[in-house]
Amino acid sequence: MSPRENILCVGLCCLDIVSQVSHFPKEDTDQRCLEQRWQRGGNAANNSTVLGLLGAKAAFLGTIADSHEKRFLLEDFAKYGVNTEQAVVCKGCECPSSCVILSRATASRTIIHSNKNLPELSVEDFAQVDLTPYQWIHFEGRNVANVAQMIKLVREHNKGLPRGEFITTSVEIEKAKPELEALIPLADVVFVSKDFAAFKGYSNKAETLERVKALAHPGAVVVCPWGEEGASACQGSGVMVHSPAFPPASVVDTLGAGDTFNAATIFALAHGSALEDSIRFGCRVAGAKVGVIGWEPMRGLLGSGTLLLKNEASLAT
Amino acid sequence: MSPRENILCVGLCCLDIVSQVSHFPKEDTDQRCLEQRWQRGGNAANNSTVLGLLGAKAAFLGTIADSHEKRFLLEDFAKYGVNTEQAVVCKGCECPSSCVILSRATASRTIIHSNKNLPELSVEDFAQVDLTPYQWIHFEGRNVANVAQMIKLVREHNKGLPRGEFITTSVEIEKAKPELEALIPLADVVFVSKDFAAFKGYSNKAETLERVKALAHPGAVVVCPWGEEGASACQGSGVMVHSPAFPPASVVDTLGAGDTFNAATIFALAHGSALEDSIRFGCRVAGAKVGVIGWEPMRGLLGSGTLLLKNEASLAT
Repeated sequence: MSPRENILCVGLCCLDIVSQVSHFPKEDTDQRCLEQRWQRGGNAANNSTVLGLLGAKAAFLGTIADSHEKRFLLEDFAKYGVNTEQAVVCKGCECPSSCVILSRATASRTIIHSNKNLPELSVEDFAQVDLTPYQWIHFEGRNVANVAQMIKLVREHNKGLPRGEFITTSVEIEKAKPELEALIPLADVVFVSKDFAAFKGYSNKAETLERVKALAHPGAVVVCPWGEEGASACQGSGVMVHSPAFPPASVVDTLGAGDTFNAATIFALAHGSALEDSIRFGCRVAGAKVGVIGWEPMRGLLGSGTLLLKNEASLAT
Repeated sequence: MSPRENILCVGLCCLDIVSQVSHFPKEDTDQRCLEQRWQRGGNAANNSTVLGLLGAKAAFLGTIADSHEKRFLLEDFAKYGVNTEQAVVCKGCECPSSCVILSRATASRTIIHSNKNLPELSVEDFAQVDLTPYQWIHFEGRNVANVAQMIKLVREHNKGLPRGEFITTSVEIEKAKPELEALIPLADVVFVSKDFAAFKGYSNKAETLERVKALAHPGAVVVCPWGEEGASACQGSGVMVHSPAFPPASVVDTLGAGDTFNAATIFALAHGSALEDSIRFGCRVAGAKVGVIGWEPMRGLLGSGTLLLKNEASLAT
């Protein structure tokens, strides 16, 4: 990795209140849960956590409500080595929050989400950030009109720089929302989810890659994670590469699994790994994630990400 | 009410994270809720809120975790005029918390509760409190061995005082737990829930009052709220008195309804109202509560509790 080894993740930070229950509750009952925890959530916030765990210099850029949850969220970013100096604290609004019910019986995750009035990151906010230190900027697929402008600002920044100092951009097309398609042509690396593919009527990874590649700019990398079927990817007119999934002995917590795959793949690509190796690394790290509860046990499993990239088999799934 | 008009509520304070949903969620789905809010919960905490709303000098005594939720909880007590100077802040533990799902379709409330490691209030904590300012001390039915000792300390305090300076004790027997029965003989006023009655196999209010009266000390007041059937009560060998329920046009939020009934009944009794009038006041205020979301709209409905007691019909249900 170059000295400019920082990776910036742009998107949402919210609070997940996660209740582990033995069985999903029947309506109108009381139960005591096995465990309840606060977990920092939001795709970009999760991406930066995983990058921090892997040993990258990760930073988060997004809005954060100046509410009771703020201290927890900022302390939790710091715990995973994520820089939040650029985050925009918004007064007088509520923190987006999800109640997440994880059932031990079925490994299901049921989410009740709320986002009352937290403003999205503006183009003006983004324009104030000094982009020089970043090697890579990853955008969560939301706030589409603004994010499109932000990616254009990065492209402007790249103009006139030697190729080695370019900032790579990536974008995640996750949710089943038509407006996200507008982001596909803009980024150097495009992550397309199974949910978005299903929404578009694409029936498998190969079709998804073909269709998205046709929309992406020439030479862009398109990555398509597909849950238990692993992931596929291609770059420009190059051949499609594949990785199987690496499921753990027992799946206990799938919250943030997709964010983990994306972050680990970005980490590998940013370190110069080949595309096939990078998505395999993404699948391995995501497989490790779903075998443990929350993020903390990932520390022991991952150790130094750089080391793992060199000696991938050492990942203790 | 005498100059010693303070009412102390002893028990739990926790955080309720309340999600209003259109329909109770299907397992393994994502949904956005209609509204999500933090609400201070715990029976004694709710009792003190209602007493504060009614215009009493209410105080809360219990343990509070020194966690991220603490500031919200203490600010929220203050918002309802509840004194928390006696509360015991416990370092290094987690705040008990409930995820509550309120369905608009069915008016159901589904609760997932967690209490990892908050210590219960100790007899030593209670012994350090100057009891002189209190006219009434209400105990939530939990932490039974300690609460039994606490009530005995109040009885000790009363010894040698003129009758007019006695502190009245009340206890709530709510949950279906056998150990709670030990508290029945100790208090001057005993609230027995429908749940506890069902657990004991008592089939109606009259049987419940008879059976509990036999366990209570001579002359004690026994109060039995029974949801949509209103409430009944008796004192010593006196006749049983009744009140109907006062349901609102539309039931929207039953969280804390029982706590509201108990607090309003205590408020009326502490003001010297007759037993029948007091439980009717309890039913009226509880009926108003279930017609509104949370506590805040109760301010407008209640105005001054003292005024309402004098002119009960003015309660704008």
